[in-house]
Parts: sequence; structure tokens; C-alpha cells
Amino acid sequence: MASRTYDRDSVEFARTLSFTDGLFAIAITLLVIDLAVPVLHHDSSIHELADRLNDEKEKFISFFISFAVIGRYWIAHHTFFSQLARMDRPLIALNLLYLAFIAFLPFPTALLGEYFANPLSVVIYAVTVAIVSGMEVVLFSRAQNHGLLEKKLPRDVYRYGAAMSLAPVIFFILSIPVAFVSTPLAVCCWFLGIPLSAIAERWKPEGADELLRG
Amino acid sequence: MASRTYDRDSVEFARTLSFTDGLFAIAITLLVIDLAVPVLHHDSSIHELADRLNDEKEKFISFFISFAVIGRYWIAHHTFFSQLARMDRPLIALNLLYLAFIAFLPFPTALLGEYFANPLSVVIYAVTVAIVSGMEVVLFSRAQNHGLLEKKLPRDVYRYGAAMSLAPVIFFILSIPVAFVSTPLAVCCWFLGIPLSAIAERWKPEGADELLRG
Amino acid sequence: MASRTYDRDSVEFARTLSFTDGLFAIAITLLVIDLAVPVLHHDSSIHELADRLNDEKEKFISFFISFAVIGRYWIAHHTFFSQLARMDRPLIALNLLYLAFIAFLPFPTALLGEYFANPLSVVIYAVTVAIVSGMEVVLFSRAQNHGLLEKKLPRDVYRYGAAMSLAPVIFFILSIPVAFVSTPLAVCCWFLGIPLSAIAERWKPEGADELLRG
Amino acid sequence: MASRTYDRDSVEFARTLSFTDGLFAIAITLLVIDLAVPVLHHDSSIHELADRLNDEKEKFISFFISFAVIGRYWIAHHTFFSQLARMDRPLIALNLLYLAFIAFLPFPTALLGEYFANPLSVVIYAVTVAIVSGMEVVLFSRAQNHGLLEKKLPRDVYRYGAAMSLAPVIFFILSIPVAFVSTPLAVCCWFLGIPLSAIAERWKPEGADELLRG
Repeated sequence: MASRTYDRDSVEFARTLSFTDGLFAIAITLLVIDLAVPVLHHDSSIHELADRLNDEKEKFISFFISFAVIGRYWIAHHTFFSQLARMDRPLIALNLLYLAFIAFLPFPTALLGEYFANPLSVVIYAVTVAIVSGMEVVLFSRAQNHGLLEKKLPRDVYRYGAAMSLAPVIFFILSIPVAFVSTPLAVCCWFLGIPLSAIAERWKPEGADELLRG
Repeated sequence: MASRTYDRDSVEFARTLSFTDGLFAIAITLLVIDLAVPVLHHDSSIHELADRLNDEKEKFISFFISFAVIGRYWIAHHTFFSQLARMDRPLIALNLLYLAFIAFLPFPTALLGEYFANPLSVVIYAVTVAIVSGMEVVLFSRAQNHGLLEKKLPRDVYRYGAAMSLAPVIFFILSIPVAFVSTPLAVCCWFLGIPLSAIAERWKPEGADELLRG
Repeated sequence: MASRTYDRDSVEFARTLSFTDGLFAIAITLLVIDLAVPVLHHDSSIHELADRLNDEKEKFISFFISFAVIGRYWIAHHTFFSQLARMDRPLIALNLLYLAFIAFLPFPTALLGEYFANPLSVVIYAVTVAIVSGMEVVLFSRAQNHGLLEKKLPRDVYRYGAAMSLAPVIFFILSIPVAFVSTPLAVCCWFLGIPLSAIAERWKPEGADELLRG
Repeated sequence: MASRTYDRDSVEFARTLSFTDGLFAIAITLLVIDLAVPVLHHDSSIHELADRLNDEKEKFISFFISFAVIGRYWIAHHTFFSQLARMDRPLIALNLLYLAFIAFLPFPTALLGEYFANPLSVVIYAVTVAIVSGMEVVLFSRAQNHGLLEKKLPRDVYRYGAAMSLAPVIFFILSIPVAFVSTPLAVCCWFLGIPLSAIAERWKPEGADELLRG
């Protein structure tokens, strides 16, 4: 028995998106809460304030990394949902599970901001992000296989799209052993996806652009 | 004299939902605020960080329990409102009262995360959640009896739906005496609803699926 | 020269409402942040936890008072905007000023929760709420006098509506001297509006119900 | 190859706005978190509470300055997007970068509230706001040059509009050297834009009002 579906123009479709967008907006804005105002001995000392902020520079780096990470997921979510013709209840439940890890992200971000040199911080961050990317593929596969997309993708385009979603997982998992050698190097691994996607363009099946990128 | 109603396609219907979804999204995302970054003596010690995080494992458990609880209520709210043809002002006011307890939930969650072994934490959590479920039934009954549903439910389907909403209340109240014996056992009681709903399928009136589950 | 207006079905009308609803939802949910988990000497002592929570009972009272206050303003805002046919830029700017005090409300709430017996807490709370109610009248008058309402109200209905919005201002200002005698008594004054509106029904001009209450 | 665009009436256009409005609403409401309840020795002492709040008066000033700053950007964003006929993906990405600095603003606000007399606080605040204004011009220029506006602006109107967006940047940058002499004076500089826009009316190209102000 098929589960009831909610069409693109239904109030329910809109609600799921507005809940999702709200959660994304809050998770991304809560990142700022970790940027604590330092305690100074001399309130008007430029030098001391500059030193204290410099001591916290990993927190600023973490803020902007996590903003970029959450922002990138929001854009990916946006692109993915723009291709949906309808949602069903299992997709809504899976989306909620995906959002649990988005909502959780400010914690690993704070951990990384505080203990940037600790390999375990990097591992926890990488595992969380890998789970989010993994859930992205689960959502994509549910939509493809249960007729929720506006048009079902050809097999090669679907495989290519799933591979592109999984690519970050690989880089995040690869960064885990690297973290035990050097944590900044591990963080750099996370950005390897950017040149890779440029290279991956070569294997892109015909028509994928139009079908996937929304 | 009947109170003015707001139809499904009115701006007011949409606003109530967007306020509700915003409040749900914030309450669920605020749960992360309790996950405090531990204080370490050796910033880069993997062992120490792992120990400190392990000390706080109840906080992580509470985060995911409350995410599941709030998420479940959001889905139930979503299903319920998808059946409404219109809202009236008392329903909007009752919905606000219901939301007061959703907004309150991060507090019992934090209490439970900090004092998992304290029966009173479990009691406070259980009572709050029981109130939310109770309010759900109040909303459902208002809608059924004041012609707000798209189609008024047959008596047996309505009773079945109300019973299903009340079932969690029973489990939460049952868990209260259990908490004085063992708090983890009390938490387990909360999840008894899942196998129960599978069993309850037997008594489901014909057509209930179509009428209730949206 | 008339300022450009945004009609009820424009994206801009919807954005102002979604920003407003978001801000209301956040302000009302942030109230929970003041409910701090107490520090216990014996983690599993029911007695100690009950005592510590009892010490903080004013915080719980403040949470529910402010939830009711903000919720009431949200319903009033909702009713008011449901009567608008369009917005102009000054109305959007005035709405923003109104929202500044809604966003500020969690601070007087926290102050009241911490220092319930301090007359100054009560005064600050009362002044903030009186400003919000005052701004409500400013918004209402702008809409009435610049043709933003779906139908301009008859003079007596407009006066009655403005008086009803101003009534809480009077009770909040009246509570200020009372606060120096007894702070719980001052808080009781705030709720005098409820019986009053019942009495005021007598002077209600004909047709006001239909025109004002949405 | 042109990037896919999302029309004004698409779900995607609406989502970008709802995410943006959510983020603005949260950033503006989070400002209240810095207003900490002071610690008193005598809970019911009016005098002591008044003194402690007076010690924190810079925090209240910062709250209202930042509310005005973020509110002004939200109105500008609102006006700008009301002129768009469609969005493309680069505009969505640029909008996200713009929002990163809006989300960051509560931090410089807190810094300013705590260390109002420290020139570095003023500099960090001014630089952040200058970046936001700069990004506004980048968004405006993308829209003008890639056919995203409902009607492409005449060259002189476009230049005038960009100059008006850049004007605050100039005042914020000018305030930086001033901060080393007097921080309150530097803050005053930020408000010079208000009389200036009145003066700039003279150079306004014909029809600019209608085309720019929405």
C-alpha cells in the first residue's frame, strides 16, 4: 500500500520546507553563540583585546567553516527539493533524521573551535558531516525509487548524482587518519571536494547538468 | 455566535503554521545549546577529551531522545493540520497553549541530561510530554466538534484517533512510578508506544488509515 | 507623494509576515533559556532537586507570564494584519520598531524571574509591555488613516478598537506605583484587562465585533 | 552557458526568502542574549539594581544600535528583492555569503557592548558592517548585469543606487581613525548617512525613486 503523498502546491509540502529552512537558519545562526567576548584586564587596551581575539582565532575559523558547510548543505537541499514533484511520509521522516544532524553540527563546531589541535575534535566533526552527506544520498535514493521526482532520472545520471553526494563522505572519512598526524591538514582534506568536482565534470553523463543541478 | 474562521488558503492559516513551524524549529535546535564543550587540562589529549565526552553521554542521549520526541510531535501536528479545512480563534489559542509546552521542553531535556539518575528529572520530563499529548487530543476534539476538519470523522474513527494520541500519555504516566525504581527503565517505557501501535492496528476501524493518517 | 504599497498577495507582504512570525517564534522560545538547570550536591537526590527548583519558582512563573504576554501580542498582531489590504513602507518600519520591543522582552522577563521582589524589575517589565501596546495603537492608526485596511473603520469602531489596545497600557502603568508596595500585587494588575474587556463589551459600537476581531 | 534561474513564483524563490528572513529574525533576536541579568547582593534593592543596569548601559545602547542596523539591512534586502523577477544560483550563493556577515553581527555587537571605550571594538564593528554594505552592492550588481531585475535600470539610476548602498561603507570606514580619538564620536559617524541621504536627493536621476525604492 502506497503512503499518501503531498504535492508540490500543498500546504504540507510548504510546511516541510519552512520547518527545514527555519531549522537551517537557526543552526547556522547559533554558530555565533560560541564566539564569546573575551575578558580583559584593561577595558580600553587595543593590544590586549587583539591578543585575546587572536587566542580565539580557531573559533572564528570554525565559525566560517561551519557556515560554509551548513550553507552548502542548504543549497544542496534546495536543489534537491526543487526537483521533487511530491513528498511522502517516509521522506518527511528521513528529512527529519537528516535535520537532527544539521541541528547537532553547532556542537562539533564548538568542539573544533575550542580544541582545534585535538584529533578527536576533527574526527567528531568529520563523522557528523559524513552522516549528513550519507543521509543526503538516502533522501535522493528514496525520491528516485518511489516516484517523487518530477522526472525519474536515467540510471547513469542517478549514479553520477549519488556519487557526487557521496564524494564529501569519502573526503571526511579520509581526513580521520590524517587528523592523528596533523589537524590543520585534516581540515584541508575537507576542501578537496572542490577541485574534484571540477575534474569529475569529465565523467558527467550527457544531460546530467540539466537534470541534476536543477 | 460562531467565531470567525480562517480558510486553508488564507494568509492567516499560513501564518499560524509558519509561527508553529518556526517555534518547533527553534525548540528542536535549541536542544544543542546544552551540549557544552568540556574543559580539558591538556588541549590535545584524545584520551582526556574522550573521557569528558563520555561523562556527558546522558546529554547526548537526551538530545537525541528530545529530537525524536519533538520531531514526532511535529509530524503529528503536520498530519493533523493537513486534515483541517479551516481554523477558528479558539483553535489558534489552544495551539498557542500547546506550543508553550513544546517551547518548554528544552528545560526538562537539560534537566534529564544533567540528572539522568534523578527520578524527579524523569517525572518532570514525563509530565511535560504527557501535557503535550493531552493538548494534542484537545486540539483534535475541537476540530472534530466545531466543523474544522475537511470531513468530520465517523464516531469510531474519531475515538480510535483520540486513543492513539492518548496512548503516549499513558506510557509517560506509567513511567513515573517506574522512575523511582530505575530511571533508565522509565525512559524505556516511553518507547513502548512503538510496538503498541503495531498491535493496535488490529482494532483499527475500517477506513481509519485513509481518514486519519492524512 | 504616496509611498509604494505592497498588496496582500505580494511576496513582500508575505515576507514581512514571515519575518514577524519568525521573530515572535524566536523571542517566545528564547524565554526557556533562563530556566537554568540547578547545581546539586547529590545528583540523585529528589529532595534537593525539588528544593532547588522551588527556589527558582519565580522563573517558571515569569516564563509562563511572558509566554502568555507574547502569545497575546502575536494573536493581536495576527488579527490586525488579517484586516490589512496592503502595507506601505512606513508601516513596515513601524512594525520593525514594534518588533524591537518584542525581541527585548526576554530581558525584562529574565530580570523579573531573578528579582521578582524588586520593584524596579516590575517597572522595567511594565514599561516595556506598555511600549509594545502603545506601538500597537500607532500601527493601527497608520493603517486606518492611510487607507491600508480592507475597509476603513467607522469613527466609533476605530475609537473603540484603539481604546481596547490602549487598555493594557493603562494597567501596566497603574501597576508601577503598586510595585513599590507589593510586587505580586503589581503583577496581578496586569491581568485586570481580562475582566475589563468583558465589561467593555457594553460600550462596544454595533458591528465592531465583525469589523475588529477579524 | 546560463545558469538555471528560479522565477518569482517558484517554490525555490520563496525558500531563499524564507531562509533569509529566518536568519535575519534570529540574528536580530539573539542580540538580547547579551543583556545579562546583573548579580545583586540585596535582591530587592532598587538602588543597587539601578546602579548595575546603569553600569551596563552600553549593552542597551549596542542592542538598539544593532537592532536598527540589522533592521535597516532587512528593509534594504526586502526592497532589493522586491525588484527581482528571478534568481540564479550565483545570486543565491552570494546571498548566503552576505548572510554569513549578518549572522556574525551579534558578536561585534557583544564586543561593543562590553568594551565600548576600546577602539578595536569599534573597528571590528565598522569593518563587519562595511562588508555587509559592500556585499549589498555585489548582489545589486549581479542582478543588474545578469538580467535578474524586473526591468534593467538605466545607467544613471543604477550608478545612483550603487552609490547609495556604498555610502554607509564610507562612513563606517571613516569612523575607524576617529575611533582612536573617541569611540562615541566614531559611533556618531555611523549615523551621518541619514542627513546625507537627504542631501543626495538633489543628485537623484529622474525616475530613480520609482525604480529604486520599490
